[in-house]
Amino acid sequence: MHGYDELNFAKLDSDRKQRTGFAEVVFCSGKSVDHLESIYKHILEIEGEVLGTRATKEQYEALKASFSDIVYDEVSHILKIEKTDKTYAGNVVVCTAGTADIPVAEEAAQTAEFFGTKVNRIYDVGVSGIHRLLSKTEELQAANCVVAVAGMEGALPSVIGGLVKNPVIAVPTSVGYGANFGGMSALLTMINSCANGIAVVNIDNGYGAGYLATQMNRLALK
Amino acid sequence: MHGYDELNFAKLDSDRKQRTGFAEVVFCSGKSVDHLESIYKHILEIEGEVLGTRATKEQYEALKASFSDIVYDEVSHILKIEKTDKTYAGNVVVCTAGTADIPVAEEAAQTAEFFGTKVNRIYDVGVSGIHRLLSKTEELQAANCVVAVAGMEGALPSVIGGLVKNPVIAVPTSVGYGANFGGMSALLTMINSCANGIAVVNIDNGYGAGYLATQMNRLALK
Amino acid sequence: MHGYDELNFAKLDSDRKQRTGFAEVVFCSGKSVDHLESIYKHILEIEGEVLGTRATKEQYEALKASFSDIVYDEVSHILKIEKTDKTYAGNVVVCTAGTADIPVAEEAAQTAEFFGTKVNRIYDVGVSGIHRLLSKTEELQAANCVVAVAGMEGALPSVIGGLVKNPVIAVPTSVGYGANFGGMSALLTMINSCANGIAVVNIDNGYGAGYLATQMNRLALK
Amino acid sequence: MHGYDELNFAKLDSDRKQRTGFAEVVFCSGKSVDHLESIYKHILEIEGEVLGTRATKEQYEALKASFSDIVYDEVSHILKIEKTDKTYAGNVVVCTAGTADIPVAEEAAQTAEFFGTKVNRIYDVGVSGIHRLLSKTEELQAANCVVAVAGMEGALPSVIGGLVKNPVIAVPTSVGYGANFGGMSALLTMINSCANGIAVVNIDNGYGAGYLATQMNRLALK
Amino acid sequence: MHGYDELNFAKLDSDRKQRTGFAEVVFCSGKSVDHLESIYKHILEIEGEVLGTRATKEQYEALKASFSDIVYDEVSHILKIEKTDKTYAGNVVVCTAGTADIPVAEEAAQTAEFFGTKVNRIYDVGVSGIHRLLSKTEELQAANCVVAVAGMEGALPSVIGGLVKNPVIAVPTSVGYGANFGGMSALLTMINSCANGIAVVNIDNGYGAGYLATQMNRLALK
Amino acid sequence: MHGYDELNFAKLDSDRKQRTGFAEVVFCSGKSVDHLESIYKHILEIEGEVLGTRATKEQYEALKASFSDIVYDEVSHILKIEKTDKTYAGNVVVCTAGTADIPVAEEAAQTAEFFGTKVNRIYDVGVSGIHRLLSKTEELQAANCVVAVAGMEGALPSVIGGLVKNPVIAVPTSVGYGANFGGMSALLTMINSCANGIAVVNIDNGYGAGYLATQMNRLALK
Amino acid sequence: MHGYDELNFAKLDSDRKQRTGFAEVVFCSGKSVDHLESIYKHILEIEGEVLGTRATKEQYEALKASFSDIVYDEVSHILKIEKTDKTYAGNVVVCTAGTADIPVAEEAAQTAEFFGTKVNRIYDVGVSGIHRLLSKTEELQAANCVVAVAGMEGALPSVIGGLVKNPVIAVPTSVGYGANFGGMSALLTMINSCANGIAVVNIDNGYGAGYLATQMNRLALK
Amino acid sequence: MHGYDELNFAKLDSDRKQRTGFAEVVFCSGKSVDHLESIYKHILEIEGEVLGTRATKEQYEALKASFSDIVYDEVSHILKIEKTDKTYAGNVVVCTAGTADIPVAEEAAQTAEFFGTKVNRIYDVGVSGIHRLLSKTEELQAANCVVAVAGMEGALPSVIGGLVKNPVIAVPTSVGYGANFGGMSALLTMINSCANGIAVVNIDNGYGAGYLATQMNRLALK
Repeated sequence: MHGYDELNFAKLDSDRKQRTGFAEVVFCSGKSVDHLESIYKHILEIEGEVLGTRATKEQYEALKASFSDIVYDEVSHILKIEKTDKTYAGNVVVCTAGTADIPVAEEAAQTAEFFGTKVNRIYDVGVSGIHRLLSKTEELQAANCVVAVAGMEGALPSVIGGLVKNPVIAVPTSVGYGANFGGMSALLTMINSCANGIAVVNIDNGYGAGYLATQMNRLALK
Repeated sequence: MHGYDELNFAKLDSDRKQRTGFAEVVFCSGKSVDHLESIYKHILEIEGEVLGTRATKEQYEALKASFSDIVYDEVSHILKIEKTDKTYAGNVVVCTAGTADIPVAEEAAQTAEFFGTKVNRIYDVGVSGIHRLLSKTEELQAANCVVAVAGMEGALPSVIGGLVKNPVIAVPTSVGYGANFGGMSALLTMINSCANGIAVVNIDNGYGAGYLATQMNRLALK
Repeated sequence: MHGYDELNFAKLDSDRKQRTGFAEVVFCSGKSVDHLESIYKHILEIEGEVLGTRATKEQYEALKASFSDIVYDEVSHILKIEKTDKTYAGNVVVCTAGTADIPVAEEAAQTAEFFGTKVNRIYDVGVSGIHRLLSKTEELQAANCVVAVAGMEGALPSVIGGLVKNPVIAVPTSVGYGANFGGMSALLTMINSCANGIAVVNIDNGYGAGYLATQMNRLALK
Repeated sequence: MHGYDELNFAKLDSDRKQRTGFAEVVFCSGKSVDHLESIYKHILEIEGEVLGTRATKEQYEALKASFSDIVYDEVSHILKIEKTDKTYAGNVVVCTAGTADIPVAEEAAQTAEFFGTKVNRIYDVGVSGIHRLLSKTEELQAANCVVAVAGMEGALPSVIGGLVKNPVIAVPTSVGYGANFGGMSALLTMINSCANGIAVVNIDNGYGAGYLATQMNRLALK
Repeated sequence: MHGYDELNFAKLDSDRKQRTGFAEVVFCSGKSVDHLESIYKHILEIEGEVLGTRATKEQYEALKASFSDIVYDEVSHILKIEKTDKTYAGNVVVCTAGTADIPVAEEAAQTAEFFGTKVNRIYDVGVSGIHRLLSKTEELQAANCVVAVAGMEGALPSVIGGLVKNPVIAVPTSVGYGANFGGMSALLTMINSCANGIAVVNIDNGYGAGYLATQMNRLALK
Repeated sequence: MHGYDELNFAKLDSDRKQRTGFAEVVFCSGKSVDHLESIYKHILEIEGEVLGTRATKEQYEALKASFSDIVYDEVSHILKIEKTDKTYAGNVVVCTAGTADIPVAEEAAQTAEFFGTKVNRIYDVGVSGIHRLLSKTEELQAANCVVAVAGMEGALPSVIGGLVKNPVIAVPTSVGYGANFGGMSALLTMINSCANGIAVVNIDNGYGAGYLATQMNRLALK
Repeated sequence: MHGYDELNFAKLDSDRKQRTGFAEVVFCSGKSVDHLESIYKHILEIEGEVLGTRATKEQYEALKASFSDIVYDEVSHILKIEKTDKTYAGNVVVCTAGTADIPVAEEAAQTAEFFGTKVNRIYDVGVSGIHRLLSKTEELQAANCVVAVAGMEGALPSVIGGLVKNPVIAVPTSVGYGANFGGMSALLTMINSCANGIAVVNIDNGYGAGYLATQMNRLALK
Repeated sequence: MHGYDELNFAKLDSDRKQRTGFAEVVFCSGKSVDHLESIYKHILEIEGEVLGTRATKEQYEALKASFSDIVYDEVSHILKIEKTDKTYAGNVVVCTAGTADIPVAEEAAQTAEFFGTKVNRIYDVGVSGIHRLLSKTEELQAANCVVAVAGMEGALPSVIGGLVKNPVIAVPTSVGYGANFGGMSALLTMINSCANGIAVVNIDNGYGAGYLATQMNRLALK
């Protein structure tokens, strides 16, 4: 027994939940409908639910026939079959600098919620109108961790990092133009921040931020 | 009252501990002896101890006259005056890929310890001899978080991320040669990892990793 | 006699097989149907078979009329006319980190097979679920060389390099998002690996990897 | 008459003050003592004073013999002979994120002062302790323009830009480590800021910022 | 009272005009018609006019029904509702190196005009035919500031900077091919210019240049 | 008289031929049909012929109505009206590494021919089959200059540079994949060549190479 | 038993020779004399010989006291204790483009020799004087693999790749100036080569090339 | 006979003058005194003179003993033994933007002179004081080619290119600070210039520019 299930085209890591506390999540981007169907079916049998990210509307339309309970969110591009009796615990804040950063923030928020985390959304609080952010100081300080999502205002995590006790997960987004290099400029801003307690993930990686936020939230719940 | 103390050349953030749970830490690199002395004295009065990073041996020699209890560590370049009655709680693992990554790892470990964290060091477990890492699996899984420090083996956090429940803090180092770009290649490897639960900090930023590890450890201790 | 055949628009290197042991291979991308037809006809006459890479389905449809034996593979984008009496010798393993890396891996595997190499495919063994890879250790150690194909897990060749006696050919792929820079991040990870015996080829260059693997396999067969 | 003075090794732009309102300034870095002496003498004769930037202490020691009134500032590396009857007009604020940014800020401030600008210094107001900056809001709003100097906190100009009516001149510095790329990360942060009214100059270019601030201040004085 | 209006999806900074002298401007790119309509309505009520940038013709067609006075300019992509009794004051020159830079220049010029600035356009005066630029020297010297827009001729601001008393706002554009890196080469040319008084904004950021030019023009009008 | 003609949207440099020996050439990319028509008409009146580069087939179709003699070449994307009595002098070789580099080479060759240069084309002589190139050594040595066009084989100019007396104009192309960075890798190879007499132009800049080759050829004809 | 030996500061991979056929090699750069002594002693006991790379003369002087048989080569910076009864088998060619590339080539050659490989050195055969290389064609074709070392002439592996049947290991060096980016330009040239059978290693990584060459040579010897 | 002389450590290309019209030139940087002595002696015997570039004063001091006629120039770092009866023909202008660019310009000028070219130096004519350059228009137009050397004013070749009939050789220098990237920004400015007739060489490559200028000058002299 190798701790994985051999599908024709993939090795599903059936041992993962045991090791990490999280079932396998499907990265839908670029996968064929046949493959997706096979993977969703396999995970659904074991877990009773499935979370998929970066799905297209076309994939959703195609899978609806086989999975009547499947749900698609056009903002976050999450495609999931979810248990109906979920409860949410802890406190994670997800905030954005601008409205264009919301899709990535929603991927983070909905991922965290899928894994049982209670999420508080605070959107459009970029630092160029700092009073909007400061009016939420108490909510930020109450969170077990803060996810800060920003493309054109890489400064957001720095300012938050100076206000709170708990970790800030910084998510650069590819939103912007000119010298933003598809989000690389925001990533560099966040990595170089001299504020403390800033944990950076990949550009547009809302899923990774939601996963990490869940881990931190679970530490506080233990 | 503005929540900071105006020194001649700096504004010490006296309100910081209240907001973030951490007293101000001194980044010694490039500071004159006069300025250092003034800052150490100021923080010592308020906190009863001081942590400084990136100090040189020359700065240590110069400050010894004024602060008899000051201690310098040549590996981590930490220069501190520390309370003697400390206790350590929780469980953070700090590991390195190679022996050349140890200075950055020590900055992380000693920072975390200064803030009361119990640290378990596992050094020289790079993935090109994977059995060395796998022999430590249980220790890794027992930690509240793992700090993984690596310059030439950016893969280390990915492998650990697949083995554990809790967050992995990835610290790229500037160790290496050729196309390592002063650590940028390791940073990119870590940021792009498709393992989950990887939080990246700046190149050689052991201090930031130790701070973040302390925050996560404190979440688990609450 | 110059050792090449002057077509109207190209100089086919008819001397190549003599020098290198490999007949000329057609890089189909961007070539017009007229040119392709002329080149395929020319090589077919001399070699009795033709290998083309990076072909589109449209090119295949257009050439079918002239070459009834032509075969197109939609995964690898290989378009070939092949002798029917081939035998395969030696032992080359082609493995991938994820399922999205399979098209590049297939270009490598089918290229090697076209040149008479026996190929063993091991797909979806990325290092974030390391037990999947370790369960194949014996197969990896038995190969004359291993082709390791990865976009988001540049660490794969490093781990394999530490397990085997023979060379590892590392193929970065452009699969990924965010700071992957079209595969450059994976390339840098592989080039900087401190594991030994890692030979790197260009991003998505499955063909080059299959060629190099064939050369190494032939060394072992001599 | 060409509007310049031909020295042996240079063409001094004697027409410049007429065209731009500023006499020629000497970039001392790398110039030999002979050349410096000749240039200072030439400008002194015409203008009655000379401003030089990026001078070393050695250059100062060497020129003291010839110019008894010459003054050197070790922080800003400015080497000047200045008229004694200067008055200062207008209102420019020069602020820094950290104490390590002060040398560049001083180059800006002293350049502006040399050209008759009244300067208000506000140092060490980085955004990770945002209350320090906000306590100075009124002073910032009163300025004809604000020069914001920062290496590790590229966010500083964004926050200020959202608070004031007048332009903010953003000066990235090479202060920092890791992925700061000698100031390029700070420069990208500032260029990509979605705050309005941010004018960026080259890394460590305090002189350019002081010049630009003087131009803006003069507009307000007209 | 927090100084902003909570829309469902955004926090409109109603306090901004008070702080900065400019009402909020809408960055239309990527916004849904519903959101745009809501934002335009909100701002129109408060300000009596609205300026939007980076709008598409489709957005214009969709909003025409609700806002009969809305006007769209296909060159600058500005979508606005404007008061009819405007007067223009001061003197700002907007110039371009080539004809392909005109769309960015128009975004700058029309933004400045919306905020009451008098604009003088001088287009197609690139430095490779320097007599075209020099024939306009007097107009350039008369301006309170000059906006210089260029993609393939990053040298334009340097030459102008040497001719005038007042600031030059340099706007790199993404126009070009080959090694222009989407405008990054022009940006670097402008940032490194050894001419004085050059203020650089982001690539293609005509809006930012128009805003900054308005601020400078207002300084002169005070 | 300023030495240019003011069209509505452009300043045609009517003085250029006098200064440089070349009439103005039209960069068609992105220009509207109206503008093109106006410019072609204007230049045709003065010069009796017009050369345009980077034209689309659509632009050609649209201009055919107004200019019956206009000719379009689909390989080089050159759109021209040319005098019929041309003679060609001198000797310029244009060569390519691969067949995919031919479009750029043709832009160079046809530009040079438009300006009266005699061109000798040698295509598909990449260095990986070096005998093809060496068989042309005499032709290369006879040329007044050699234009070497290459995307995946940046080495071509180096080898030629070592064989000939006269200058080699190196043109990197964007042909390639993986780590070619749109031609930047070829450009760097060419710029760093330790062969002598290599003059590099921008990526895909066939026009610039043809212009430069014409200048060199004219030097030899004087 | 974990398959490694725990030194105080490192985990020596005692299982490595069993897995990979190569004993552990010491990367001396930056290691203290104490650590080096301990590691050399440990490996010497097990293997009867030790290979170290990137050693300084100072390290050699310090270790001479403890190891009388230790030998240092100033060109390759190899510091080794070697068995005296070695025989060399197979055939590997190591060649360089210029004389400045020899240190890296010697690291490759001497590493291969330490592991029992017969090496044929061909230095200073850069492609800008191609006849020097071509005069060695037969020797190149006779090798089991060719190591091609080059900094300013990244083209060398491409030309060799077109001449031989067996793999070419391309080693970029940091030799050069200007836009060579510490060897990155040579690396990109080699990675993008359209010649076949090119395996690239890190910049200046002579050791890695020698290791890989040994692996290939051993395949041929089996 | 292979057309080269085998020294112990190098293959001197004795056939080069025959092929290219230029004897071999010595790149002194990093060469040992022994090697230099041997190479200078060898070339001196054949050519009666030797040109070396990038030499240090130490190399000069060491070689003086053996070669009494050897001459060293501290500005250009050229170390040469030259025939005394030289005459200079043609007309090449070498100009610089600033005084700091003179060392590179001198390498170009003296290289050209060594090969018999008549050189006209025009230094310190950067475009930020454009009247200095324009006052030299006739001299520029009279040259067979112009070498334009610039680090902080990459625009210089563009402006000259628009003024002259003959080619402009653009030499970026590493002079500058901030975002100049060791000359890469100047290189990009020059490569992207939309002026015509610009031939770019490597950063600081005065020698290459002088060589290329000599080739062009010789074309005109034929």
